[in-house]
Amino acid sequence: MPRRDETRYVLYYWPSLQGRGEPIRLLFEEAGVPYVDIARLPEDEGGGVAAIEPALAGETTGLLPFAPPFLEVDGLLIAQAANILQFLAPRFGLVPDDEPSRVAAHQIQLTLADLMSEAHDTHHPISVNLYYEDQKEEAKRRAASFTAERMPKFLGYFEDLLRRNRRSKGRHLVGTKLSYVDLSMFQVLSGLAYAFPNAFARLEPEIPLLVALRDRVAARPRIAAYLASERRLPFHEGGLFRHYPELDEKPAAGKTGARRRKTSPKR
Amino acid sequence: MPRRDETRYVLYYWPSLQGRGEPIRLLFEEAGVPYVDIARLPEDEGGGVAAIEPALAGETTGLLPFAPPFLEVDGLLIAQAANILQFLAPRFGLVPDDEPSRVAAHQIQLTLADLMSEAHDTHHPISVNLYYEDQKEEAKRRAASFTAERMPKFLGYFEDLLRRNRRSKGRHLVGTKLSYVDLSMFQVLSGLAYAFPNAFARLEPEIPLLVALRDRVAARPRIAAYLASERRLPFHEGGLFRHYPELDEKPAAGKTGARRRKTSPKR
Repeated sequence: MPRRDETRYVLYYWPSLQGRGEPIRLLFEEAGVPYVDIARLPEDEGGGVAAIEPALAGETTGLLPFAPPFLEVDGLLIAQAANILQFLAPRFGLVPDDEPSRVAAHQIQLTLADLMSEAHDTHHPISVNLYYEDQKEEAKRRAASFTAERMPKFLGYFEDLLRRNRRSKGRHLVGTKLSYVDLSMFQVLSGLAYAFPNAFARLEPEIPLLVALRDRVAARPRIAAYLASERRLPFHEGGLFRHYPELDEKPAAGKTGARRRKTSPKR
Repeated sequence: MPRRDETRYVLYYWPSLQGRGEPIRLLFEEAGVPYVDIARLPEDEGGGVAAIEPALAGETTGLLPFAPPFLEVDGLLIAQAANILQFLAPRFGLVPDDEPSRVAAHQIQLTLADLMSEAHDTHHPISVNLYYEDQKEEAKRRAASFTAERMPKFLGYFEDLLRRNRRSKGRHLVGTKLSYVDLSMFQVLSGLAYAFPNAFARLEPEIPLLVALRDRVAARPRIAAYLASERRLPFHEGGLFRHYPELDEKPAAGKTGARRRKTSPKR
Protein backbone atom coordinates (compact mmCIF):
# COMPACT_ATOMS: atom_id res chain seq x y z
CA MET A 1 0.00 0.00 0.00
CA PRO A 2 1.39 3.45 -0.89
CA ARG A 3 1.88 6.11 1.73
CA ARG A 4 -0.88 8.67 2.09
CA ASP A 5 1.19 11.37 0.40
CA GLU A 6 1.90 9.10 -2.58
CA THR A 7 -1.65 8.88 -3.93
CA ARG A 8 -4.68 11.08 -4.58
CA TYR A 9 -7.04 8.38 -3.35
CA VAL A 10 -7.80 7.62 0.29
CA LEU A 11 -10.52 5.04 0.95
CA TYR A 12 -12.25 5.02 4.33
CA TYR A 13 -13.88 1.73 5.21
CA TRP A 14 -14.04 -0.70 8.12
CA PRO A 15 -10.66 -2.43 8.31
CA SER A 16 -11.95 -5.98 8.88
CA LEU A 17 -14.81 -6.10 6.36
CA GLN A 18 -15.30 -6.60 2.64
CA GLY A 19 -18.85 -5.23 2.83
CA ARG A 20 -19.87 -2.23 0.78
CA GLY A 21 -16.23 -1.18 0.43
CA GLU A 22 -15.13 -4.21 -1.55
CA PRO A 23 -16.48 -3.17 -4.99
CA ILE A 24 -14.37 -0.02 -4.63
CA ARG A 25 -11.26 -2.00 -3.68
CA LEU A 26 -11.83 -4.25 -6.72
CA LEU A 27 -12.03 -1.17 -8.96
CA PHE A 28 -8.69 0.17 -7.73
CA GLU A 29 -7.08 -3.26 -7.99
CA GLU A 30 -8.28 -3.91 -11.55
CA ALA A 31 -7.25 -0.40 -12.60
CA GLY A 32 -3.85 -0.81 -10.98
CA VAL A 33 -4.28 2.62 -9.38
CA PRO A 34 -2.56 3.10 -5.99
CA TYR A 35 -4.92 3.86 -3.10
CA VAL A 36 -4.64 4.05 0.65
CA ASP A 37 -7.15 1.87 2.49
CA ILE A 38 -6.59 4.04 5.47
CA ALA A 39 -8.26 2.16 8.32
CA ARG A 40 -6.13 -0.88 7.47
CA LEU A 41 -2.92 0.94 8.33
CA PRO A 42 -1.56 0.30 11.83
CA GLU A 43 -3.03 2.66 14.41
CA ASP A 44 0.36 4.30 15.01
CA GLU A 45 0.44 5.20 11.31
CA GLY A 46 -2.97 6.87 11.45
CA GLY A 47 -4.99 3.74 10.69
CA GLY A 48 -7.65 1.73 12.50
CA VAL A 49 -11.26 2.68 13.05
CA ALA A 50 -10.00 5.95 14.55
CA ALA A 51 -9.16 7.06 10.99
CA ILE A 52 -12.82 6.90 9.99
CA GLU A 53 -14.37 8.62 12.99
CA PRO A 54 -13.50 12.31 12.48
CA ALA A 55 -15.33 12.51 9.13
CA LEU A 56 -18.40 10.75 10.55
CA ALA A 57 -18.36 13.17 13.49
CA GLY A 58 -18.36 16.11 11.11
CA GLU A 59 -14.88 17.22 12.10
CA THR A 60 -13.58 17.43 8.53
CA THR A 61 -14.54 19.83 5.77
CA GLY A 62 -16.60 18.72 2.80
CA LEU A 63 -19.86 16.85 2.69
CA LEU A 64 -20.67 14.79 5.76
CA PRO A 65 -20.88 11.06 5.03
CA PHE A 66 -23.73 9.10 6.63
CA ALA A 67 -21.61 5.94 6.81
CA PRO A 68 -18.50 4.32 5.30
CA PRO A 69 -17.37 3.74 2.63
CA PHE A 70 -16.24 7.21 1.67
CA LEU A 71 -13.41 8.43 -0.49
CA GLU A 72 -11.13 11.42 -0.26
CA VAL A 73 -9.92 12.65 -3.63
CA ASP A 74 -8.59 16.08 -4.66
CA GLY A 75 -10.13 17.70 -1.57
CA LEU A 76 -13.53 16.13 -2.14
CA LEU A 77 -15.15 13.68 0.27
CA ILE A 78 -17.54 11.34 -1.54
CA ALA A 79 -19.83 8.80 0.14
CA GLN A 80 -22.22 6.07 -0.99
CA ALA A 81 -20.46 3.19 -2.75
CA ALA A 82 -22.37 3.47 -6.05
CA ASN A 83 -21.65 7.20 -6.14
CA ILE A 84 -17.94 6.59 -5.58
CA LEU A 85 -17.80 3.95 -8.31
CA GLN A 86 -19.63 6.23 -10.72
CA PHE A 87 -17.11 8.98 -9.99
CA LEU A 88 -13.99 6.82 -10.34
CA ALA A 89 -14.82 4.43 -13.17
CA PRO A 90 -14.63 6.98 -16.03
CA ARG A 91 -11.24 8.15 -14.73
CA PHE A 92 -9.96 4.57 -14.80
CA GLY A 93 -11.47 3.58 -18.16
CA LEU A 94 -13.73 1.05 -16.47
CA VAL A 95 -17.04 2.23 -17.95
CA PRO A 96 -17.85 3.18 -21.56
CA ASP A 97 -17.71 6.85 -22.52
CA ASP A 98 -21.26 7.40 -23.78
CA GLU A 99 -24.03 8.62 -21.51
CA PRO A 100 -26.50 5.76 -22.19
CA SER A 101 -23.87 3.20 -21.13
CA ARG A 102 -23.05 5.17 -17.99
CA VAL A 103 -26.70 5.49 -17.07
CA ALA A 104 -27.09 1.75 -17.68
CA ALA A 105 -24.05 0.88 -15.58
CA HIS A 106 -25.25 2.99 -12.67
CA GLN A 107 -28.73 1.51 -12.89
CA ILE A 108 -27.24 -1.99 -12.60
CA GLN A 109 -24.94 -0.92 -9.76
CA LEU A 110 -27.90 0.48 -7.79
CA THR A 111 -29.80 -2.77 -8.33
CA LEU A 112 -26.77 -4.68 -7.05
CA ALA A 113 -26.77 -2.38 -4.02
CA ASP A 114 -30.43 -3.27 -3.41
CA LEU A 115 -29.55 -6.96 -3.58
CA MET A 116 -26.67 -6.45 -1.15
CA SER A 117 -28.98 -4.68 1.30
CA GLU A 118 -31.48 -7.52 1.10
CA ALA A 119 -28.69 -10.07 1.64
CA HIS A 120 -27.59 -8.08 4.71
CA ASP A 121 -31.10 -7.97 6.10
CA THR A 122 -31.38 -11.78 6.07
CA HIS A 123 -29.24 -11.79 9.23
CA HIS A 124 -30.46 -8.42 10.52
CA PRO A 125 -34.17 -8.25 9.69
CA ILE A 126 -35.13 -6.31 12.83
CA SER A 127 -32.29 -3.94 13.73
CA VAL A 128 -28.65 -3.28 12.94
CA ASN A 129 -28.27 -2.42 16.63
CA LEU A 130 -29.12 -5.94 17.80
CA TYR A 131 -26.97 -9.05 17.59
CA TYR A 132 -27.91 -11.76 15.10
CA GLU A 133 -28.73 -14.04 18.01
CA ASP A 134 -31.38 -11.57 19.15
CA GLN A 135 -33.21 -11.72 15.81
CA LYS A 136 -32.46 -15.27 14.75
CA GLU A 137 -36.04 -16.49 14.42
CA GLU A 138 -36.97 -13.50 12.27
CA ALA A 139 -33.76 -14.03 10.30
CA LYS A 140 -34.80 -17.59 9.44
CA ARG A 141 -38.10 -16.36 8.01
CA ARG A 142 -36.49 -13.54 6.06
CA ALA A 143 -33.69 -15.74 4.73
CA ALA A 144 -36.17 -18.37 3.55
CA SER A 145 -37.95 -15.72 1.51
CA PHE A 146 -34.64 -14.34 0.26
CA THR A 147 -33.24 -17.66 -1.00
CA ALA A 148 -36.56 -18.90 -2.40
CA GLU A 149 -37.82 -15.70 -4.02
CA ARG A 150 -35.56 -12.67 -4.03
CA MET A 151 -32.18 -14.20 -4.87
CA PRO A 152 -33.61 -16.11 -7.87
CA LYS A 153 -35.45 -12.99 -9.03
CA PHE A 154 -32.37 -10.74 -8.85
CA LEU A 155 -29.96 -13.29 -10.33
CA GLY A 156 -32.43 -14.17 -13.09
CA TYR A 157 -32.62 -10.46 -13.89
CA PHE A 158 -28.84 -10.07 -14.10
CA GLU A 159 -28.58 -13.22 -16.23
CA ASP A 160 -31.17 -11.66 -18.56
CA LEU A 161 -29.09 -8.50 -18.80
CA LEU A 162 -26.07 -10.52 -19.90
CA ARG A 163 -28.10 -12.50 -22.43
CA ARG A 164 -29.59 -9.31 -23.86
CA ASN A 165 -26.17 -7.63 -24.22
CA ARG A 166 -25.53 -9.31 -27.58
CA ARG A 167 -22.81 -6.81 -28.49
CA SER A 168 -20.63 -8.42 -25.83
CA LYS A 169 -21.89 -11.98 -26.58
CA GLY A 170 -23.13 -12.18 -23.00
CA ARG A 171 -19.66 -11.56 -21.60
CA HIS A 172 -20.26 -8.13 -20.02
CA LEU A 173 -23.16 -6.38 -18.35
CA VAL A 174 -22.54 -3.07 -20.14
CA GLY A 175 -20.80 -2.40 -23.45
CA THR A 176 -18.23 -4.75 -24.95
CA LYS A 177 -15.44 -4.53 -22.37
CA LEU A 178 -15.00 -5.12 -18.66
CA SER A 179 -16.64 -2.38 -16.55
CA TYR A 180 -16.93 -1.69 -12.85
CA VAL A 181 -20.34 -3.33 -12.87
CA ASP A 182 -18.79 -6.66 -13.87
CA LEU A 183 -16.41 -6.36 -10.90
CA SER A 184 -19.29 -5.64 -8.52
CA MET A 185 -21.26 -8.56 -9.98
CA PHE A 186 -18.28 -10.83 -9.23
CA GLN A 187 -18.30 -9.58 -5.65
CA VAL A 188 -22.03 -10.14 -5.13
CA LEU A 189 -21.94 -13.63 -6.66
CA SER A 190 -18.97 -14.54 -4.46
CA GLY A 191 -20.76 -13.25 -1.38
CA LEU A 192 -23.99 -15.08 -2.12
CA ALA A 193 -22.14 -18.35 -2.81
CA TYR A 194 -20.33 -17.94 0.51
CA ALA A 195 -23.44 -17.09 2.53
CA PHE A 196 -25.92 -19.47 0.92
CA PRO A 197 -23.91 -22.31 -0.68
CA ASN A 198 -26.88 -24.65 -1.06
CA ALA A 199 -29.24 -22.05 -2.45
CA PHE A 200 -26.54 -20.80 -4.78
CA ALA A 201 -25.71 -24.32 -5.97
CA ARG A 202 -29.37 -24.89 -6.77
CA LEU A 203 -29.51 -21.70 -8.87
CA GLU A 204 -26.15 -22.08 -10.57
CA PRO A 205 -27.41 -24.15 -13.54
CA GLU A 206 -29.89 -21.35 -14.35
CA ILE A 207 -27.27 -18.59 -14.49
CA PRO A 208 -24.51 -19.89 -16.76
CA LEU A 209 -23.54 -16.47 -18.14
CA LEU A 210 -23.19 -14.99 -14.64
CA VAL A 211 -21.09 -17.91 -13.44
CA ALA A 212 -18.82 -17.59 -16.47
CA LEU A 213 -18.51 -13.83 -15.88
CA ARG A 214 -17.60 -14.42 -12.24
CA ASP A 215 -14.91 -16.91 -13.21
CA ARG A 216 -13.47 -14.63 -15.90
CA VAL A 217 -13.24 -11.73 -13.45
CA ALA A 218 -11.54 -13.95 -10.85
CA ALA A 219 -8.97 -14.99 -13.47
CA ARG A 220 -7.98 -11.50 -14.55
CA PRO A 221 -4.31 -11.09 -13.60
CA ARG A 222 -4.68 -8.11 -11.26
CA ILE A 223 -7.84 -9.47 -9.63
CA ALA A 224 -6.29 -12.93 -9.21
CA ALA A 225 -3.22 -11.36 -7.61
CA TYR A 226 -5.43 -9.31 -5.30
CA LEU A 227 -7.56 -12.29 -4.27
CA ALA A 228 -4.39 -14.25 -3.44
CA SER A 229 -2.93 -11.37 -1.43
CA GLU A 230 -3.37 -10.32 2.17
CA ARG A 231 -5.19 -7.22 0.95
CA ARG A 232 -8.24 -9.40 0.24
CA LEU A 233 -10.02 -9.88 3.54
CA PRO A 234 -11.88 -13.15 4.10
CA PHE A 235 -15.67 -13.37 4.26
CA HIS A 236 -16.77 -13.95 7.85
CA GLU A 237 -19.73 -13.72 10.20
CA GLY A 238 -19.21 -10.05 11.01
CA GLY A 239 -19.75 -8.87 7.45
CA LEU A 240 -22.50 -8.17 4.98
CA PHE A 241 -22.54 -11.71 3.55
CA ARG A 242 -22.65 -14.22 6.42
CA HIS A 243 -22.72 -17.98 6.35
CA TYR A 244 -25.13 -19.24 8.96
CA PRO A 245 -26.13 -22.79 7.94
CA GLU A 246 -29.56 -22.31 9.51
CA LEU A 247 -30.28 -19.46 7.07
CA ASP A 248 -29.35 -21.44 3.95
CA GLU A 249 -31.56 -23.89 2.09
CA LYS A 250 -31.11 -27.60 2.67
CA PRO A 251 -28.80 -29.32 0.15
CA ALA A 252 -30.56 -29.92 -3.16
CA ALA A 253 -32.93 -32.89 -3.16
CA GLY A 254 -31.15 -34.24 -6.24
CA LYS A 255 -27.86 -34.66 -4.39
CA THR A 256 -29.40 -36.25 -1.33
CA GLY A 257 -31.44 -38.47 -3.61
CA ALA A 258 -28.35 -39.53 -5.53
CA ARG A 259 -26.48 -40.43 -2.35
CA ARG A 260 -29.46 -42.33 -1.02
CA ARG A 261 -29.77 -44.31 -4.23
CA LYS A 262 -26.09 -45.22 -4.09
CA THR A 263 -26.25 -46.61 -0.57
CA SER A 264 -29.57 -48.41 -0.94
CA PRO A 265 -29.33 -51.94 -2.32
CA LYS A 266 -31.36 -52.64 -5.45
CA ARG A 267 -34.49 -54.52 -4.83
CA MET B 1 -51.53 15.48 -18.58
CA PRO B 2 -50.19 15.84 -22.16
CA ARG B 3 -50.72 13.14 -24.74
CA ARG B 4 -47.88 10.70 -25.20
CA ASP B 5 -46.86 12.28 -28.50
CA GLU B 6 -46.72 15.74 -26.92
CA THR B 7 -43.77 15.13 -24.60
CA ARG B 8 -40.36 13.46 -24.56
CA TYR B 9 -40.90 12.09 -21.07
CA VAL B 10 -42.92 9.01 -20.21
CA LEU B 11 -42.85 7.92 -16.56
CA TYR B 12 -43.73 4.31 -15.70
CA TYR B 13 -44.85 3.81 -12.14
CA TRP B 14 -47.68 2.12 -10.22
CA PRO B 15 -50.81 4.19 -10.81
CA SER B 16 -52.09 4.17 -7.22
CA LEU B 17 -48.86 4.82 -5.32
CA GLN B 18 -46.61 7.73 -4.41
CA GLY B 19 -43.77 5.39 -3.49
CA ARG B 20 -40.43 5.62 -5.20
CA GLY B 21 -42.01 7.39 -8.17
CA GLU B 22 -43.09 10.49 -6.25
CA PRO B 23 -39.69 12.27 -6.12
CA ILE B 24 -39.67 12.06 -9.92
CA ARG B 25 -43.20 13.46 -10.19
CA LEU B 26 -42.18 16.33 -7.88
CA LEU B 27 -39.21 17.10 -10.12
CA PHE B 28 -41.39 17.35 -13.23
CA GLU B 29 -43.98 19.43 -11.37
CA GLU B 30 -41.46 21.91 -9.96
CA ALA B 31 -39.76 22.20 -13.34
CA GLY B 32 -43.07 22.70 -15.09
CA VAL B 33 -42.03 20.14 -17.70
CA PRO B 34 -44.88 18.11 -19.27
CA TYR B 35 -44.68 14.36 -18.67
CA VAL B 36 -46.94 11.40 -19.19
CA ASP B 37 -47.50 9.33 -16.04
CA ILE B 38 -48.53 6.53 -18.30
CA ALA B 39 -50.06 3.97 -15.94
CA ARG B 40 -52.46 6.65 -14.67
CA LEU B 41 -54.07 7.01 -18.07
CA PRO B 42 -57.30 5.04 -18.54
CA GLU B 43 -56.70 1.51 -19.74
CA ASP B 44 -58.41 2.20 -23.06
CA GLU B 45 -55.85 4.95 -23.64
CA GLY B 46 -52.91 2.62 -23.01
CA GLY B 47 -52.73 3.19 -19.25
CA GLY B 48 -53.11 1.02 -16.17
CA VAL B 49 -50.64 -1.53 -14.85
CA ALA B 50 -50.69 -3.10 -18.33
CA ALA B 51 -48.61 -0.16 -19.53
CA ILE B 52 -45.75 -1.14 -17.19
CA GLU B 53 -45.66 -4.86 -17.85
CA PRO B 54 -44.07 -5.15 -21.32
CA ALA B 55 -40.84 -3.43 -20.24
CA LEU B 56 -40.59 -5.57 -17.09
CA ALA B 57 -41.14 -8.67 -19.23
CA GLY B 58 -38.26 -7.65 -21.48
CA GLU B 59 -40.52 -7.06 -24.47
CA THR B 60 -39.16 -3.59 -25.21
CA THR B 61 -35.74 -2.56 -26.44
CA GLY B 62 -33.23 -0.85 -24.20
CA LEU B 63 -32.01 -1.83 -20.75
CA LEU B 64 -34.32 -4.07 -18.78
CA PRO B 65 -35.63 -2.41 -15.59
CA PHE B 66 -35.73 -4.54 -12.43
CA ALA B 67 -38.76 -2.66 -11.10
CA PRO B 68 -40.67 0.62 -11.54
CA PRO B 69 -40.13 3.53 -11.60
CA PHE B 70 -38.55 3.81 -15.01
CA LEU B 71 -38.49 6.59 -17.53
CA GLU B 72 -38.59 6.63 -21.31
CA VAL B 73 -36.78 9.58 -22.84
CA ASP B 74 -35.31 10.01 -26.33
CA GLY B 75 -35.32 6.27 -26.93
CA LEU B 76 -33.60 5.49 -23.61
CA LEU B 77 -35.20 3.48 -20.83
CA ILE B 78 -33.78 4.48 -17.42
CA ALA B 79 -34.56 2.76 -14.12
CA GLN B 80 -33.73 3.33 -10.43
CA ALA B 81 -35.27 6.53 -9.05
CA ALA B 82 -31.98 8.14 -7.98
CA ASN B 83 -30.53 7.43 -11.42
CA ILE B 84 -33.53 9.02 -13.14
CA LEU B 85 -33.34 12.12 -10.93
CA GLN B 86 -29.63 12.45 -11.57
CA PHE B 87 -30.29 12.27 -15.32
CA LEU B 88 -33.15 14.77 -15.38
CA ALA B 89 -32.16 17.39 -12.81
CA PRO B 90 -29.33 19.02 -14.83
CA ARG B 91 -31.68 19.30 -17.83
CA PHE B 92 -34.26 21.09 -15.67
CA GLY B 93 -31.83 23.37 -13.79
CA LEU B 94 -32.62 21.63 -10.53
CA VAL B 95 -29.05 20.82 -9.47
CA PRO B 96 -25.95 23.04 -9.58
CA ASP B 97 -23.66 22.76 -12.60
CA ASP B 98 -20.38 21.84 -10.90
CA GLU B 99 -19.30 18.23 -10.37
CA PRO B 100 -18.77 18.44 -6.58
CA SER B 101 -22.34 19.68 -6.10
CA ARG B 102 -23.71 16.96 -8.34
CA VAL B 103 -21.77 14.27 -6.50
CA ALA B 104 -23.02 15.71 -3.20
CA ALA B 105 -26.64 15.82 -4.41
CA HIS B 106 -26.51 12.21 -5.57
CA GLN B 107 -24.90 11.11 -2.31
CA ILE B 108 -27.76 12.70 -0.37
CA GLN B 109 -30.36 11.22 -2.73
CA LEU B 110 -28.92 7.71 -2.24
CA THR B 111 -29.03 8.18 1.52
CA LEU B 112 -32.67 9.27 1.23
CA ALA B 113 -33.28 6.10 -0.80
CA ASP B 114 -31.74 4.06 2.03
CA LEU B 115 -34.06 5.77 4.51
CA MET B 116 -37.07 5.09 2.28
CA SER B 117 -36.13 1.40 2.08
CA GLU B 118 -35.84 1.20 5.86
CA ALA B 119 -39.21 2.94 6.26
CA HIS B 120 -40.70 0.40 3.84
CA ASP B 121 -39.24 -2.53 5.74
CA THR B 122 -40.94 -1.46 8.99
CA HIS B 123 -44.16 -2.94 7.58
CA HIS B 124 -42.46 -5.65 5.50
CA PRO B 125 -39.50 -6.87 7.59
CA ILE B 126 -39.76 -10.49 6.40
CA SER B 127 -40.91 -10.53 2.77
CA VAL B 128 -42.45 -8.27 0.14
CA ASN B 129 -44.39 -11.34 -0.97
CA LEU B 130 -46.31 -11.64 2.32
CA TYR B 131 -49.13 -9.43 3.59
CA TYR B 132 -48.43 -7.06 6.45
CA GLU B 133 -50.76 -9.13 8.63
CA ASP B 134 -48.49 -12.13 8.13
CA GLN B 135 -45.42 -10.28 9.48
CA LYS B 136 -47.09 -7.97 11.98
CA GLU B 137 -45.20 -9.10 15.08
CA GLU B 138 -41.84 -8.74 13.32
CA ALA B 139 -43.02 -5.39 11.98
CA LYS B 140 -43.63 -4.12 15.51
CA ARG B 141 -40.07 -4.98 16.52
CA ARG B 142 -38.53 -3.47 13.41
CA ALA B 143 -40.66 -0.32 13.62
CA ALA B 144 -39.70 0.21 17.26
CA SER B 145 -36.04 0.16 16.26
CA PHE B 146 -36.73 2.40 13.29
CA THR B 147 -38.54 5.13 15.21
CA ALA B 148 -36.23 5.00 18.25
CA GLU B 149 -32.88 4.69 16.46
CA ARG B 150 -32.81 4.88 12.69
CA MET B 151 -35.24 7.73 12.00
CA PRO B 152 -33.52 10.05 14.53
CA LYS B 153 -30.11 9.10 13.13
CA PHE B 154 -31.07 9.79 9.51
CA LEU B 155 -33.00 12.99 10.24
CA GLY B 156 -30.27 14.26 12.53
CA TYR B 157 -27.82 13.66 9.70
CA PHE B 158 -29.92 15.61 7.18
CA GLU B 159 -30.41 18.44 9.68
CA ASP B 160 -26.60 18.55 10.06
CA LEU B 161 -26.22 18.80 6.30
CA LEU B 162 -28.51 21.82 6.22
CA ARG B 163 -26.73 23.46 9.15
CA ARG B 164 -23.35 22.91 7.50
CA ASN B 165 -24.48 24.37 4.18
CA ARG B 166 -23.78 27.93 5.32
CA ARG B 167 -23.71 29.25 1.76
CA SER B 168 -27.47 28.70 1.66
CA LYS B 169 -28.01 29.76 5.30
CA GLY B 170 -29.42 26.31 6.00
CA ARG B 171 -32.13 26.72 3.39
CA HIS B 172 -30.98 24.08 0.89
CA LEU B 173 -29.22 20.72 1.09
CA VAL B 174 -26.91 21.48 -1.85
CA GLY B 175 -25.77 24.82 -3.24
CA THR B 176 -27.71 28.04 -2.76
CA LYS B 177 -30.88 27.27 -4.72
CA LEU B 178 -33.61 24.67 -4.69
CA SER B 179 -32.43 21.32 -6.06
CA TYR B 180 -34.07 17.96 -6.64
CA VAL B 181 -32.69 16.76 -3.31
CA ASP B 182 -34.77 19.38 -1.46
CA LEU B 183 -37.86 18.08 -3.26
CA SER B 184 -37.06 14.49 -2.28
CA MET B 185 -36.40 15.58 1.31
CA PHE B 186 -39.87 17.17 1.37
CA GLN B 187 -41.34 13.88 0.17
CA VAL B 188 -39.54 11.76 2.77
CA LEU B 189 -40.45 14.13 5.63
CA SER B 190 -44.08 14.12 4.51
CA GLY B 191 -44.09 10.34 4.35
CA LEU B 192 -42.52 9.88 7.77
CA ALA B 193 -44.93 12.37 9.36
CA TYR B 194 -47.82 10.47 7.81
CA ALA B 195 -46.59 7.02 8.81
CA PHE B 196 -45.26 7.81 12.29
CA PRO B 197 -47.03 10.99 13.49
CA ASN B 198 -46.07 10.52 17.14
CA ALA B 199 -42.44 9.67 16.51
CA PHE B 200 -42.20 12.53 14.03
CA ALA B 201 -43.78 14.99 16.45
CA ARG B 202 -41.26 13.98 19.09
CA LEU B 203 -38.36 14.62 16.71
CA GLU B 204 -39.70 17.81 15.13
CA PRO B 205 -38.19 20.22 17.70
CA GLU B 206 -34.74 18.77 16.92
CA ILE B 207 -34.96 19.33 13.17
CA PRO B 208 -36.06 22.96 12.71
CA LEU B 209 -34.14 23.48 9.46
CA LEU B 210 -35.66 20.38 7.88
CA VAL B 211 -39.16 21.36 8.95
CA ALA B 212 -38.67 24.84 7.52
CA LEU B 213 -37.35 23.36 4.26
CA ARG B 214 -40.36 21.05 4.02
CA ASP B 215 -42.75 23.95 4.51
CA ARG B 216 -40.96 26.14 1.97
CA VAL B 217 -41.09 23.38 -0.64
CA ALA B 218 -44.80 22.80 0.02
CA ALA B 219 -45.44 26.53 -0.47
CA ARG B 220 -43.71 26.82 -3.84
CA PRO B 221 -46.40 27.78 -6.36
CA ARG B 222 -46.02 24.78 -8.68
CA ILE B 223 -45.64 22.29 -5.82
CA ALA B 224 -48.60 23.79 -3.94
CA ALA B 225 -50.72 23.54 -7.10
CA TYR B 226 -49.62 19.94 -7.59
CA LEU B 227 -50.36 18.97 -3.98
CA ALA B 228 -53.86 20.46 -4.29
CA SER B 229 -54.53 18.70 -7.60
CA GLU B 230 -55.83 15.23 -8.38
CA ARG B 231 -52.41 14.36 -9.75
CA ARG B 232 -51.11 14.07 -6.17
CA LEU B 233 -52.15 10.65 -4.91
CA PRO B 234 -52.91 10.30 -1.20
CA PHE B 235 -50.69 8.35 1.18
CA HIS B 236 -52.40 5.08 2.09
CA GLU B 237 -51.80 1.61 3.52
CA GLY B 238 -50.76 0.09 0.20
CA GLY B 239 -47.73 2.34 -0.24
CA LEU B 240 -44.17 2.73 0.93
CA PHE B 241 -45.08 4.98 3.89
CA ARG B 242 -47.95 3.38 5.82
CA HIS B 243 -49.74 4.56 8.91
CA TYR B 244 -50.38 1.63 11.21
CA PRO B 245 -50.90 3.06 14.73
CA GLU B 246 -49.38 -0.08 16.27
CA LEU B 247 -46.06 0.66 14.50
CA ASP B 248 -45.82 4.25 15.74
CA GLU B 249 -44.55 5.41 19.11
CA LYS B 250 -47.03 6.31 21.81
CA PRO B 251 -47.88 10.05 22.02
CA ALA B 252 -45.08 12.00 23.70
CA ALA B 253 -44.97 11.66 27.49
CA GLY B 254 -44.91 15.45 27.77
CA LYS B 255 -48.33 15.79 26.24
CA THR B 256 -49.85 13.05 28.35
CA GLY B 257 -48.15 14.46 31.43
CA ALA B 258 -49.45 17.95 30.70
CA ARG B 259 -52.97 16.66 30.40
CA ARG B 260 -52.62 14.67 33.58
CA ARG B 261 -51.36 17.67 35.51
CA LYS B 262 -54.27 19.77 34.29
CA THR B 263 -56.88 17.32 35.46
CA SER B 264 -55.25 16.45 38.80
CA PRO B 265 -56.18 18.79 41.65
CA LYS B 266 -53.25 20.46 43.41
CA ARG B 267 -52.38 18.94 46.75
